[in-house]
Amino acid sequence: MRKPVRPQARSATKAPAFPKNWRQVAGNHAISELAKVRPKSIKHILIQNNWNSSADLRELMDLLKKLSIKIEEKSDADIQKICPSHQGAVAFSDHNLNFNYENAGWKKNELVLALDGVEDPHNLGAIMRTSWLMGVSGIIIPADRAVGLTATVHKVACGGVEHVPVATTNNFSEPFKKLKEDGFWVFGMSHKATKTIYDLKLPEKVVWVMGAEDKGLRIPTERACDELVSIPQIDANASYNVSVATALALAETKRQWKLS
Amino acid sequence: MRKPVRPQARSATKAPAFPKNWRQVAGNHAISELAKVRPKSIKHILIQNNWNSSADLRELMDLLKKLSIKIEEKSDADIQKICPSHQGAVAFSDHNLNFNYENAGWKKNELVLALDGVEDPHNLGAIMRTSWLMGVSGIIIPADRAVGLTATVHKVACGGVEHVPVATTNNFSEPFKKLKEDGFWVFGMSHKATKTIYDLKLPEKVVWVMGAEDKGLRIPTERACDELVSIPQIDANASYNVSVATALALAETKRQWKLS
Repeated sequence: MRKPVRPQARSATKAPAFPKNWRQVAGNHAISELAKVRPKSIKHILIQNNWNSSADLRELMDLLKKLSIKIEEKSDADIQKICPSHQGAVAFSDHNLNFNYENAGWKKNELVLALDGVEDPHNLGAIMRTSWLMGVSGIIIPADRAVGLTATVHKVACGGVEHVPVATTNNFSEPFKKLKEDGFWVFGMSHKATKTIYDLKLPEKVVWVMGAEDKGLRIPTERACDELVSIPQIDANASYNVSVATALALAETKRQWKLS
Repeated sequence: MRKPVRPQARSATKAPAFPKNWRQVAGNHAISELAKVRPKSIKHILIQNNWNSSADLRELMDLLKKLSIKIEEKSDADIQKICPSHQGAVAFSDHNLNFNYENAGWKKNELVLALDGVEDPHNLGAIMRTSWLMGVSGIIIPADRAVGLTATVHKVACGGVEHVPVATTNNFSEPFKKLKEDGFWVFGMSHKATKTIYDLKLPEKVVWVMGAEDKGLRIPTERACDELVSIPQIDANASYNVSVATALALAETKRQWKLS
């Protein structure tokens, strides 16, 4: 006869509930960066109970132990239920880096990004990784119908989420209006434009507006831009991936600034 | 009593064997581009039997029907067994675009890429998508310990695999020797370099050599380069994704060529 399973024992395998405003940070690079930059924001860490068999997880564990962060060991399957994109560990942070573009205290050269509905977490993560390394001051994303700061975004961004503040909006024309008042020029990336990013003389303060995968910029967003520009390509049958296009626009801006 | 299952019926669910030299092309953009560029190379197509419920698959089906390509309908699960990364369809092509750098008939400006052990199919796919749009003449990859032209690479490249020929090598110093004889300069991307891509005056024929994820260039590959260069970044704690770094190097080369 099979031994009856107590209801408590069964419910113990259920995923525990963490507060919704805690960020799920997956990926070793992302967790390390979080632990370096704002260790006190880490409220909980789950790590695979066989972490000792992975060099990457051992290294992460060394770092976390030094910071005296409480760590809970769990099976791969149990962590999977909470965070399907984990790579052996997931950290929970209660800190959110908000992009306060209304009171930012701008310096001479400033880069701001607006992403008009990027849906793929790999693209948003890749954009945040590049944005970190290029010194982007902040990213504005739509409040709905776009990917937010998921565990996968953290993983792909490799620590970038800790360095690039994010704001959400329901209507890009509002933040653009404020940024224009503060001296920004708003450039929208669009296939339709004949002028390329290399034809521009870029000003000191730049907002780059990137469209969603496949769809590009929405009409109201396009209208809210000062100018539309494109990136040269030898075949019109395809387009650059949005994270590649973003990197090219940011890099050209920084290149021009260095010369001026 | 359960009806006995005939052995034939059971084995009918096994994945059919396709020749190993046939490329598995996944992703709607990639299959469309293959069908446009070299339809006669398509030897077989598998498509989900519920294709009619997807607008993307209906569009693909229209294109394929016009080309009178034989199409086999199968369940999602059956296609999954053959090609886990499919998005409703997979095409098999018997054509491989080989990069013959020994007899290429070079023009004035030429871009060649060498990838020293890129392992992630998403990175190779992203690099091939950008390479297509930037007019790269060919890519050299290692024969072993690197990702090849998998179904995922095709999907991420969005058609780029049909346009950028690939060569494999066991030792980069050999193709580099030949390319240098033909007037190429070989630039290796490395963290260690103090000179950046924006400090270079790029010549007419350029090989960009990119290292593997995390590991960078191997020592023998580094030694075979004419010069090592880097991309500026504001934080040394991380690095650009290899597909982003490749795009930045290619774009800067093309920008300089246009001015000269």
